[in-house]
Parts: sequence; C-alpha cells; structure tokens
Amino acid sequence: MAADKIETIVSLSKRRGFVFPCSDIYGGSRAAWDYGPLGVELKENIKRQWWKAMVTGREDIVGLDSSVILAPEVWVASGHVATFSDPLTECTACHKRHRADHLEEAYEAKHGRLPANGLADINCPHCGVKGQFTEPKQFSGMLETHLGPTQDSKAYLRPETAQGIFTNFAHVQTTSRKKPPFGIAQMGKSFRNEITPGNFIFRTREFEQMEMEFFVKPGEDEQWQEYWMAERWNWYRGLGIREENIRWYEHPKEKLSHYSKRTADIEYRFNFGGNEFSELEGVANRTDFDLKAHSAASGQDLTYFDQEAGERYTPYVIEPAAGVNRAMLAFMLDAYNEDEAPNAKGVMEKRTVMRLDPRLAPIKVAVLPLSRNAQLSPKAKGLAADLRKNWNIEFDDAGAIGRRYRRQDEIGTPFCITVDFDTLDDNAVTVRERDTMKQERVSLDQIQSYLGSRLLGC
Amino acid sequence: MAADKIETIVSLSKRRGFVFPCSDIYGGSRAAWDYGPLGVELKENIKRQWWKAMVTGREDIVGLDSSVILAPEVWVASGHVATFSDPLTECTACHKRHRADHLEEAYEAKHGRLPANGLADINCPHCGVKGQFTEPKQFSGMLETHLGPTQDSKAYLRPETAQGIFTNFAHVQTTSRKKPPFGIAQMGKSFRNEITPGNFIFRTREFEQMEMEFFVKPGEDEQWQEYWMAERWNWYRGLGIREENIRWYEHPKEKLSHYSKRTADIEYRFNFGGNEFSELEGVANRTDFDLKAHSAASGQDLTYFDQEAGERYTPYVIEPAAGVNRAMLAFMLDAYNEDEAPNAKGVMEKRTVMRLDPRLAPIKVAVLPLSRNAQLSPKAKGLAADLRKNWNIEFDDAGAIGRRYRRQDEIGTPFCITVDFDTLDDNAVTVRERDTMKQERVSLDQIQSYLGSRLLGC
Repeated sequence: MAADKIETIVSLSKRRGFVFPCSDIYGGSRAAWDYGPLGVELKENIKRQWWKAMVTGREDIVGLDSSVILAPEVWVASGHVATFSDPLTECTACHKRHRADHLEEAYEAKHGRLPANGLADINCPHCGVKGQFTEPKQFSGMLETHLGPTQDSKAYLRPETAQGIFTNFAHVQTTSRKKPPFGIAQMGKSFRNEITPGNFIFRTREFEQMEMEFFVKPGEDEQWQEYWMAERWNWYRGLGIREENIRWYEHPKEKLSHYSKRTADIEYRFNFGGNEFSELEGVANRTDFDLKAHSAASGQDLTYFDQEAGERYTPYVIEPAAGVNRAMLAFMLDAYNEDEAPNAKGVMEKRTVMRLDPRLAPIKVAVLPLSRNAQLSPKAKGLAADLRKNWNIEFDDAGAIGRRYRRQDEIGTPFCITVDFDTLDDNAVTVRERDTMKQERVSLDQIQSYLGSRLLGC
Repeated sequence: MAADKIETIVSLSKRRGFVFPCSDIYGGSRAAWDYGPLGVELKENIKRQWWKAMVTGREDIVGLDSSVILAPEVWVASGHVATFSDPLTECTACHKRHRADHLEEAYEAKHGRLPANGLADINCPHCGVKGQFTEPKQFSGMLETHLGPTQDSKAYLRPETAQGIFTNFAHVQTTSRKKPPFGIAQMGKSFRNEITPGNFIFRTREFEQMEMEFFVKPGEDEQWQEYWMAERWNWYRGLGIREENIRWYEHPKEKLSHYSKRTADIEYRFNFGGNEFSELEGVANRTDFDLKAHSAASGQDLTYFDQEAGERYTPYVIEPAAGVNRAMLAFMLDAYNEDEAPNAKGVMEKRTVMRLDPRLAPIKVAVLPLSRNAQLSPKAKGLAADLRKNWNIEFDDAGAIGRRYRRQDEIGTPFCITVDFDTLDDNAVTVRERDTMKQERVSLDQIQSYLGSRLLGC
C-alpha cells in the first residue's frame, strides 16, 4: 500500500476534484497542477490555519504581501543571481536531463554512501545506462521575464517570498512599531525553473510558500531557532500529522546555503521512489546576511536601534519556510485511510476515509435528504442554506444514502446530516460523524450550536 | 479635497502600513506596490467576502485555483496571442511612451468628442507638445518567460485567470456534478505588460483578480447578465460603497472585446486626473466563444448534455471580473473621512476616520490600557490575547489615549477597548465605537458576546 499511496492520492484527487493536471485538455503537463473545487478549499484552509498560528493569533508577528516581480537589484544583493543554480547533467545515452545532486543523493540513500567515482558510478534512472552523464553545468533556477514597451528591461519571478520581506523590513518595522524579537510573515506564489519537476504537487515550477522571517537580537538567534523548530513541529502535529511520519533532518555544515548558520528540515514520510522522507519545511538561521547584503547594496540603513539598551544592531533572522502544496500533500497522505463499514445489508465492506482535521476539511457538513422527495428536499435545502452562512456545505440527494456517506468519507467531510421522514414530525435530524460513523439525533433548533462546538476554529 | 484624495490615501497607506512602493530601498517603482501589515489584512478581507458571496455562500458556484503559467496553446486558442495588445505611441518631443487609446479617451472625456484628426490634435500629457506622436504600433500585453533547462520553451504569465477556468470546465463540471446554470470562481494574480502603469494600485503590471465564469444555457444568457449585474452592484453597496460613487458604463458595440456580446462595467469615482470615473469591475457576456475555441483547438468535448431536455449545447458564459487592488482602493477612498472630535481639553479638532465596514477593517478591536502601568498592562494584554483567538487585535499602550483613538480611527478599527483603573474594581471596560465615538461600559464577562454580535461575518 505505502508505495502506491501517492498514486492513490493522485487518482482520488483527479476523480473528486482536488487536483487536476494543468492544461489537461492540451495534453497536460506533469510540471504544473490546478486545484479543483475541493483542493482550493483544502489549500486555503491550510493557509488560513498558518496565518492564524503565525500572524493574527500572535502579538509579535505581522503580515505582508510583496510583489512577485521585484527590482532586479534585489536578486543580485541576495546572492540569487550568482548562486541560485542547480547542477544540470544529461545522460548521453537517452538524452534525459537530471540534477546531478539528486542523482548522487538517490545513490547515497540506496547504498548508504556517496558514489566513489561520482556520476561515473550511477545508472541513469530513465534508461538504466551507467555513467554516461555529461559534465554538470550550473543552470539558473530563476525564471526571467522582460518588462516595458520594448521588453528591454529584464526581471525575475521571485524564487522565494523571503526577499520581499527583507526589502520591506524598515517600512514594516517603523509602521507597525514592533521591536525585536518580532516577525514578518508572507504567503504567496514563487517560481523556480526546476530541471526535474515531479512527484505530483511536491516539486513544481510554480508553487506557494508560507514564510516567516523572525528578527532577533544577535546572540539570541540560537535559542529562537529552537523555539521555532518546536512551534512548527507542533503546528503539523496539532493539525493531525502523525509523529511517526515526520522527523528532523539537520543540514550538514558543508551543505548549508550561503546565508545559513544552521538549517533543520521537518521531513515527511512521502515515500517517493527511493526516498522514504523528503523535505516539508525548513527552519533556517539566516543570520544577518540578507539585511546586511541589502543595506550594502541599497545604501539604506537596515539596522535596529534598541533605545532601552542604547545599542544599534542588524537583527539576526530565523526563518520557518513551508511549502503550501507539499503541506497539502502531506495532510492528504496522513489522513488517507482504508477501513471497513457496513453496507446496506449490514455486510462489512472496504471504506475509504480521509481523516482530515475538521479545520482543514474542504466541506464541513454534507446535508443529505434520505431520498429525493417533495417534502424532504426543500427541508434539506433550507437547512443547507442556513448552515452555509457559517460553513462550506454540500447538498447531495443523488443515490443511495450509504453511497453518499462513502462519497463524503472519501473527501474528509466531518459530519453528514440526514433529513428523513421523521424530521417532518420531530423536527430533528441524524448527524453522522465521519471517523466513528456514530449517529446521533439532534433537534434542528440545536443544530447550529451542536456543529459550532464541534467545528471550533473552522 | 477630491482631487488630492488619492494622494492623501497614498501617503496614509505608506505612513500606516497599508501599501509601500515595491523595492523602495532600491529607488522603488511606481509600477508595483507591496502590501504592508494593514494592507494585507484589508486585501484578504475583501477576497474573503468575495469568496463567501460568490462561492461558499452559494450552492451553484464552486472554486478553482489554476496555474499562472498554462500551456502556451491556451493563449493561442483564446485569441490572446493574436489580439491581446495595446496601441503604443511615443511623443517624439519628449520620448515618453503612451497608449494611443488612452490619449484619445482622455481627450474625449475633456472635450466631449473624439479628436477630429486623431493624435494630431492631442497634446502630450508629459511635455505638452501637440501632435508629435509616432504612428501607434500594436504591442503585446502578455509577459513572457522561458521554461526548462535550456529555457527553450516559451510560456506566458496569464493576463487573466478566466482561461484557467475554461480549460478546467469539463473536469470541474464532472467532479462537482453541477449543471448549468452554475459557476466556477477563481482568485489569483495576473500579469500584464502595461505601457503606462499608474494611479497608485489601480493599474499595475502585477495584480489580483476575482473572476467568476457562470455557465448558462444559450438563450438564458441575457437574463443572467442582468442578474449578475445586480448581484455585483449590491456586493459593493453591501460593503459600504456609496451609491453616488458608482455607475454603470455600457461598452459600445463597436468597442467590445472579440469574445463579448455585451459588457457593462461598474465604474467608481476614483477622480484620477482627467477621468472622474474609472473601471472597477466588468460584467461580460462572453458567449460560447471560449469553450468553443478551446474545444476546436484541443479536440476535446466541452459541451454539456442536458439529460432532462435530451439536448447538447455549449454553455454561454457570464463573467463578473473584479480587480482586488482597485476594489481595495475604492473601499479606502469611500471610507476615508474627515470630521471633528474633541481633544483632551474638550476642544474640537480635525479627525481622520476610515469608515470601513467592520468585515473589511484590518484590525477589528484595539485594546488600550489607559496608561502603561503594572496593573493595567497585564490585564489589557490578557484581554487582547483572549480576543485574538477570534479576531485580529491590536494592543497599544504608547501615548495619550486620545492620540491612540485617532490612530485607530485613521485605519478603520471599529472598536477600541480601554482598560482603566475602574476595571480592576468593576471587571468592566469602556468600549468606544469608531463612527459615533460613543462609549459604553461593558462587563468583561460579556465582552466576547458584545463584540461577537457587532462583528458578525468578520
């Protein structure tokens, strides 16, 4: 099951409207994905929970939304123009292109050591031929575009949202009147010209990030990194990710990015071919690299003056940087479950159930009239309309009730409400809970508060 | 005042953290803007209200989030590669570039008629010299980029979100099991290589759209356009835009886009130099143009089979397409007000107040201890932390209380709560309402429900 689970999720995603291949009618592309009616709700719910945990729920962090296309100088100062590149190699046997570092990592994961002779020891993952790779060339990961009437002005699509935070540091600090330790958070799209996009929505050329830069006094950076590592771990755990499916990966000193003093990744057990665990989120100590680099390049003062202590410093930065799309994939994989439920004849049959935290579930409640009927349908529609003021509701009156339960289980809907003939007499409905499949009779007068207390924070 | 109002808003936006010039530390750019801590909340609140009104609050519309970079074939089929261009002209006296159609429109707005001799009658808005314009050349409004290891594969950044909806029509219709009339809605960034970006966040090369494509049976399209024109008008009115500041503009038949049977714009009284009203949102009848074009180009079936009537048709499409950024500017302009309030000595002084609908206000409640004090501050901080579970809260203990009220009025905070020395005895606080400045004493036991009933839908 484990190895096929990704394929199961890809298939369920397309069949139920979570994720479709981008431009599918034109033959599609495995490099980009579109989010359908259920996917867009799940993704937005993840973002909303992050924003609540990281911005509005805290007094020490404020939000920002900077542009995708910044002044090109930003990417020179940040080091991206010089160093944001990947080693590209081509198998001369099949002409398939690969990232040399990924080939070596896959070899290491399989053999427990690096290849003694580099690429010469490695078989092409595409055609199997050994060691026929070209010398790796550095290849820029930034997408370029050109602005203006004559398209003469080169610009970049941001490969990370973080730099928009650093360039706005002084404005935000002044207008929000925050003092270190404080953070600036941002969600938004970034673009990277990946050589080998793949693994469904895990690695794409267009993706969404949730990044927060936390500015602290130098010397307090190490303890704040520990703090944010714990916070981020707990965020995933609190939204239902099981402990056995995540782990920490410490970047070895010699492999750290040019700006980083220490980086630790939360890895999730995605089980992509060859790799059991892959990166979900990185928590990096970016030191004062970015603020100093932008200060030097722009001539602007990006220091902070601590009036109480009478000292001036360039803050250090701790950055928890999460990918929205891979978080969504992790939440779906973790929630996906197969168990058993009785069918109409009471015989146990296989059931697919997505045990998503109610805060993440795309549909909170499904309203199901027992049958399509001149009395039940209007009653059920009226209830759905009432509940829709507060939550995302689905109304479904097509097919046997058991089949409709299965449909909701599969997409993670926490509650199904059945309107039956008794409802017309007792003004009550049957509420069925997704995980336990327990049913409870609830008066329509109580239904809003019943659901309200069970859908807290939704 | 009217003419300076935009400048007042630009200045307030930068000073208080709504909107900053993008890449300001590198000299900035009037072509792009970044949204600060208050701006990102206001903008997200607008989007959330739109999503609620257009998607989750309705049973006949579902959401979508498609990619910015689609297959290039999409833009050929849609007609964008061939026709999405603007007439570019240059004043040979000052070498400033202009859009020829904008020059003619500004002339018409001023003189009540089109220039008899075209550009020859028009003075350059930059240097004032008359009629020294080059012959207009068509210039593509789509931003290009190149994907892949050798960057050999040309692609476009979407100039509208709509095409991602049309290419996903069949997948969404099937998986959501919706039947016409039904809609697919999407919010997201689009990019246009504007010749003359300007007027603050009104016209930028990178912007956010809220678009909904409503699929209907041919023949029912005209009545549905009327329906959506009324709905969209009411949406702005319901969120506080004053009736006298919006109007309808019917596109003349000869100026309609290639896909449109009828387009009507909601215009807002932005009062940009020369133009009193400018477009806020367009409601277009796109007919079956897009679905038929994509069906022809892709060979896929994009029709709908109506089982009950036993007939097959390509749906017509009504599209309400709104700009997030210009909506935000309209809401700010409309809410901006100057009146009078008593200062500490009871003398009336000028007050700036942003009368934003509470659902849009970036901060819902400010918690203000009367003074910085060992007893009041912890009490107020505790209250702020409690309220923060439900709403975006600001805590402010710096300066005189009157000045802190002014700060909140200026950014549109509906309620200020003052924690004073009486609070320590009576366990109650003073709640001040923004618009009336009326104050009310409310018990701390009641404060959540007091605010809850006044912040409905926030």
